[in-house]
Amino acid sequence: MAGNSFGEVFRITTFGESHGAAIGVVVDGCPAGLPFDLTFIQQQLDRRRPGQSAISTDRKESDVVEVLSGVFEGKTTGTPVAMLLRNTDQRSGDYDALKEVYRPSHADFTYEARYGIRDHRGGGRSSARETAARVAAGALAQLLLRSAGVQVQAYVSAVGPISLEKAYTELDLSLTDQNIVRCPDVATASQMEALITQLKAEGDSVGGVITAVVRALPAGLGDPVFDKLEADLAKAMLSINAVKGFEIGSGFAAAAGRGSAFNDAFELRNGRVRTQSNHSGGIQGGISNGEDVYFHVAFKPVATISKSQQTVNRSGEATELQAKGRHDPCVVPRAVPIVEAMTALVLADHWLRMRMAKL
Amino acid sequence: MAGNSFGEVFRITTFGESHGAAIGVVVDGCPAGLPFDLTFIQQQLDRRRPGQSAISTDRKESDVVEVLSGVFEGKTTGTPVAMLLRNTDQRSGDYDALKEVYRPSHADFTYEARYGIRDHRGGGRSSARETAARVAAGALAQLLLRSAGVQVQAYVSAVGPISLEKAYTELDLSLTDQNIVRCPDVATASQMEALITQLKAEGDSVGGVITAVVRALPAGLGDPVFDKLEADLAKAMLSINAVKGFEIGSGFAAAAGRGSAFNDAFELRNGRVRTQSNHSGGIQGGISNGEDVYFHVAFKPVATISKSQQTVNRSGEATELQAKGRHDPCVVPRAVPIVEAMTALVLADHWLRMRMAKL
Amino acid sequence: MAGNSFGEVFRITTFGESHGAAIGVVVDGCPAGLPFDLTFIQQQLDRRRPGQSAISTDRKESDVVEVLSGVFEGKTTGTPVAMLLRNTDQRSGDYDALKEVYRPSHADFTYEARYGIRDHRGGGRSSARETAARVAAGALAQLLLRSAGVQVQAYVSAVGPISLEKAYTELDLSLTDQNIVRCPDVATASQMEALITQLKAEGDSVGGVITAVVRALPAGLGDPVFDKLEADLAKAMLSINAVKGFEIGSGFAAAAGRGSAFNDAFELRNGRVRTQSNHSGGIQGGISNGEDVYFHVAFKPVATISKSQQTVNRSGEATELQAKGRHDPCVVPRAVPIVEAMTALVLADHWLRMRMAKL
Amino acid sequence: MAGNSFGEVFRITTFGESHGAAIGVVVDGCPAGLPFDLTFIQQQLDRRRPGQSAISTDRKESDVVEVLSGVFEGKTTGTPVAMLLRNTDQRSGDYDALKEVYRPSHADFTYEARYGIRDHRGGGRSSARETAARVAAGALAQLLLRSAGVQVQAYVSAVGPISLEKAYTELDLSLTDQNIVRCPDVATASQMEALITQLKAEGDSVGGVITAVVRALPAGLGDPVFDKLEADLAKAMLSINAVKGFEIGSGFAAAAGRGSAFNDAFELRNGRVRTQSNHSGGIQGGISNGEDVYFHVAFKPVATISKSQQTVNRSGEATELQAKGRHDPCVVPRAVPIVEAMTALVLADHWLRMRMAKL
Repeated sequence: MAGNSFGEVFRITTFGESHGAAIGVVVDGCPAGLPFDLTFIQQQLDRRRPGQSAISTDRKESDVVEVLSGVFEGKTTGTPVAMLLRNTDQRSGDYDALKEVYRPSHADFTYEARYGIRDHRGGGRSSARETAARVAAGALAQLLLRSAGVQVQAYVSAVGPISLEKAYTELDLSLTDQNIVRCPDVATASQMEALITQLKAEGDSVGGVITAVVRALPAGLGDPVFDKLEADLAKAMLSINAVKGFEIGSGFAAAAGRGSAFNDAFELRNGRVRTQSNHSGGIQGGISNGEDVYFHVAFKPVATISKSQQTVNRSGEATELQAKGRHDPCVVPRAVPIVEAMTALVLADHWLRMRMAKL
Repeated sequence: MAGNSFGEVFRITTFGESHGAAIGVVVDGCPAGLPFDLTFIQQQLDRRRPGQSAISTDRKESDVVEVLSGVFEGKTTGTPVAMLLRNTDQRSGDYDALKEVYRPSHADFTYEARYGIRDHRGGGRSSARETAARVAAGALAQLLLRSAGVQVQAYVSAVGPISLEKAYTELDLSLTDQNIVRCPDVATASQMEALITQLKAEGDSVGGVITAVVRALPAGLGDPVFDKLEADLAKAMLSINAVKGFEIGSGFAAAAGRGSAFNDAFELRNGRVRTQSNHSGGIQGGISNGEDVYFHVAFKPVATISKSQQTVNRSGEATELQAKGRHDPCVVPRAVPIVEAMTALVLADHWLRMRMAKL
Repeated sequence: MAGNSFGEVFRITTFGESHGAAIGVVVDGCPAGLPFDLTFIQQQLDRRRPGQSAISTDRKESDVVEVLSGVFEGKTTGTPVAMLLRNTDQRSGDYDALKEVYRPSHADFTYEARYGIRDHRGGGRSSARETAARVAAGALAQLLLRSAGVQVQAYVSAVGPISLEKAYTELDLSLTDQNIVRCPDVATASQMEALITQLKAEGDSVGGVITAVVRALPAGLGDPVFDKLEADLAKAMLSINAVKGFEIGSGFAAAAGRGSAFNDAFELRNGRVRTQSNHSGGIQGGISNGEDVYFHVAFKPVATISKSQQTVNRSGEATELQAKGRHDPCVVPRAVPIVEAMTALVLADHWLRMRMAKL
Repeated sequence: MAGNSFGEVFRITTFGESHGAAIGVVVDGCPAGLPFDLTFIQQQLDRRRPGQSAISTDRKESDVVEVLSGVFEGKTTGTPVAMLLRNTDQRSGDYDALKEVYRPSHADFTYEARYGIRDHRGGGRSSARETAARVAAGALAQLLLRSAGVQVQAYVSAVGPISLEKAYTELDLSLTDQNIVRCPDVATASQMEALITQLKAEGDSVGGVITAVVRALPAGLGDPVFDKLEADLAKAMLSINAVKGFEIGSGFAAAAGRGSAFNDAFELRNGRVRTQSNHSGGIQGGISNGEDVYFHVAFKPVATISKSQQTVNRSGEATELQAKGRHDPCVVPRAVPIVEAMTALVLADHWLRMRMAKL
């Protein structure tokens, strides 16, 4: 109810502020008997970790996860799995100047409007640091999905005006993590990296797009009418900091087209009902149809920039802001594991919910 | 849990199939003491009603709402408000041919995959007829918001390739319902109408975009981190039949831009903290900031077309489909009140949830 | 959130006031493919129906249920099952005198304190008439449980000071409905009936106890730590009007005893792990263990009595109340199907939830 | 959904096993701006702590709470408050013998039936150790209630056959913690202590009753029809380990009585509508009426006893069990703060929910 939980059956609750003692997550509803692969979870956290490359923030966090409960002799027990990440590199002093100032396009003003109080250190709860907890939980969801053969992959498909022209079906997604931008097309990745490096030097930031693909998802996931699979995916994506748009399958392009061109004809292929095209993005009537699920997520440019900006302070007085905190010039490379995590959380939840649909 | 409820505090549950006895909704959590304006609710239903114009389906439903509970002496009592709409014009016979066939880009195949059984008459539960129940509930939510001065308005901003170039700030939204397309720009509306009429004649369909605007919403609505206001709006929109995309504020365009251009600088205006621009779309950190909330919703072309299509039947045999059921060639004109309803439901819910944020 | 829903997976929402247009229920989460036995549902409603015997209220309600949705060709479809009961015998005039008066031990004062408004006709939403909706939904839950072989039975074990000495294991529960008191022991039933008849003549009322027994429930139901099976049963029972107490297994008697006497030793019986005694009442650690679940529910005397009572009106002035509305002198005979319904709702919910406990 | 969360608005999620790394709780929905009194929270934990007196278990846990999030400059911020308690005195070796054995009236068998796997060390998740997390969260709920003047107090009213004859109104509850039994009547407390000491020596255990009283609770709390205040209290109590019964107000005694004797007449007292008696226990129609709320909770004897017992192992073979783990001979003295905590959690939740009842 207060917004810090996600999912119905596979349900997570995250906690923690950017510069508090720790952040963490409690996963409730993970079924018993799942082999618990701590190495995999730590790997996902490492992919999101700050300071991992020349184009990410300088903040150093080892982000070593501690598992507090719910695992016994290498397997989940059906009880809550709590995971903890201590905050270590907290230069709260960097933020003292921000105590009285509302940073443009940040949550300083709105948190204060809502709660009447705000932990200004590094954005407090509104910091993207919270997403590390999601990645830990999402990695556990991925373990569940993998046990069922489902694959979730995301990659950077645009950085600012540089956009990958190829569809996911034309790409080798195993190359995604081969470069620091996480774009599976090497040439495009180089251009993206160059742009980010340039903007970092300019003290500016840039937006981008992440594309996600789910393969081998069986037909039947999704709980219409309100909990359509695409509706829960949309919520999951828009709940990530800086996300401004979501489109599934043919997305906004479909709005411009005709039914005769966008309908996905059915056929029997290898003994299974399949569609010839996949404008639907693997979901029809809110329920997966066995085809690939794919969607695009738009991220706005990072709000923290080093350039000078106009704003007001808590007394409403005009002031100039020169940001000092550490930040990424472009969020999408590090957001790839976050998009994968949120996708996995939605799917793991609906995977379990599907068990209740039939007698 | 089974997907037929929406909202946490102002919570609705809809029920009913396209060709069953009735559809309806139970609204739980509407606060006591709200003047109940039945005329307004019926008006909203009339705006969604089939058969209302030359470009909508021929199905005739009076959609007269019956209020079963929760209202006493003209006011809500704090108990559930149940509203019922009888189905009257059910030509189930039209659908007999579809009992064994999976219509392309419809929910026939996926409902059967999930539930093992399916009410094939008019799409059963997957029919957009269900949205009438949402409109009734959304109208009640609107009454609550209006009592607080909040205004929710939506309009058609694109039909197929015909797109309104002007932003909402340049339009007079009071003109929206002056034409059957529900586009507030007369010239554009004419083009849209012509296109829809042409496609109807061709037995084809077309997609479109609806833009929604919320004015006079106070700062403080939204429950981060997962129930960010834009996340709940995204889910609400993607839960509407045929919706494939959502973008808030600067949306996908922001992905291509720079922080120095997209940040919204704060200033003091008329004694209140305001932003100079509104790329954020009225929400920062998941919480409303007092500016206008606006977003775009992409609808794919209606899946039902009269043109002949390839598909398979329940036995997996290839077959040709020639649709006979009544349908709209373009859904967006009638979807305007649905978008408004779902928007109002999200806002009414968060309006009440805001009451619990502070001591 | 507003209290009109019950259950997590098999989830019901009831609506309606005693003297409004109708009462009803929406069942969401009933799995698809369950044969829908309308006759059985109507039978359960008939067992709860007012005016069924000489010792129940004179209000006449046929309580014929109308199924609005969720059933197709004799089976549930996995979509919401809505059921409606029209109110017919509404002598609202009987209650005009109560508009300004707070009836002792009724909900008049508290509803007004909470909501600032109250539908005074027959108690409005606080009337036990609402439980008819529970019985309809509970009957559907029973159909689900019966398909799995689980049996739920309740009976009257005390009326005022007349208490059945025998345990449920010594009784033939198939005799329960053979008399109007619903006590399976004929001799005791006669005494109970005589007492109720006498109190009716005196214009007084009396309390009672209902005992419920669940047989053939498999081990494994219950979601510790908070949703222990007995915890959800306790809530279900205390949510019934007039209930003041609940005890499971050895109950309050266990508080007076020793571990060496109350522990249930395990043994292997017919190839299955069983307990030798059943002080636990079939639940250990919040999870069913395969033994019979049994519990007792205490009902206070009906608050409506014909005897004159002191009270105050809405202006706080002392006044004397002489009730005119129709009422039962003892609620337990008609409450038997309500206890069964609420028990079945808890079990059906946990039956489905059990599906998610293991990989 | 998986049972480890409690409450709707003021919502807690607990995690942790008896012999894992730690136990803890995340409180979501605590309003911002509440002064955070860590000393008070630690005090409540100390009252529940094992090893605190001669009649409690020998297990030594310091139970020092660490606050991980949600508090800034001495006040809650509206974000989740996570609290952690490390497990220190884990003699897991004591439990090796239990790996293959089902302890009578414990959760060993049922956890294995449900989850197919079980952390046998100290009962794992089923251990009463989990209640420490409830006490921490409940103390925070108490801080919220105290800010509104509401008082929650519990005390031991029976240990085995030794029962306090006086009602709570005749006792001085400030004396409760003056003795290790937590019975406010000195003479009775001595008898109780003697009995517990004797049973400890015998290797046996004994049950008991705790009575709880809530004073200065305003009228209006409770969400009928299902979330009646007494229903949520009943669930809260039955969710505590070893609880077998609950009665509110006149409870089971009411079942034996007449309406004319048990109705609570209204009167105007000191300008406020009050009842002359309080058989209702401060709740009518599921909503508090401004009178004291009081109820009794029955605890069965502790299942762990040193006496030899018959049971079976995981292979179904009969075996004799001689318990070695450390345990309390009587749970009620240490359960007093647990009952207070669960009571406070229910009331804090409904306190916030009341805010949404009216326009």
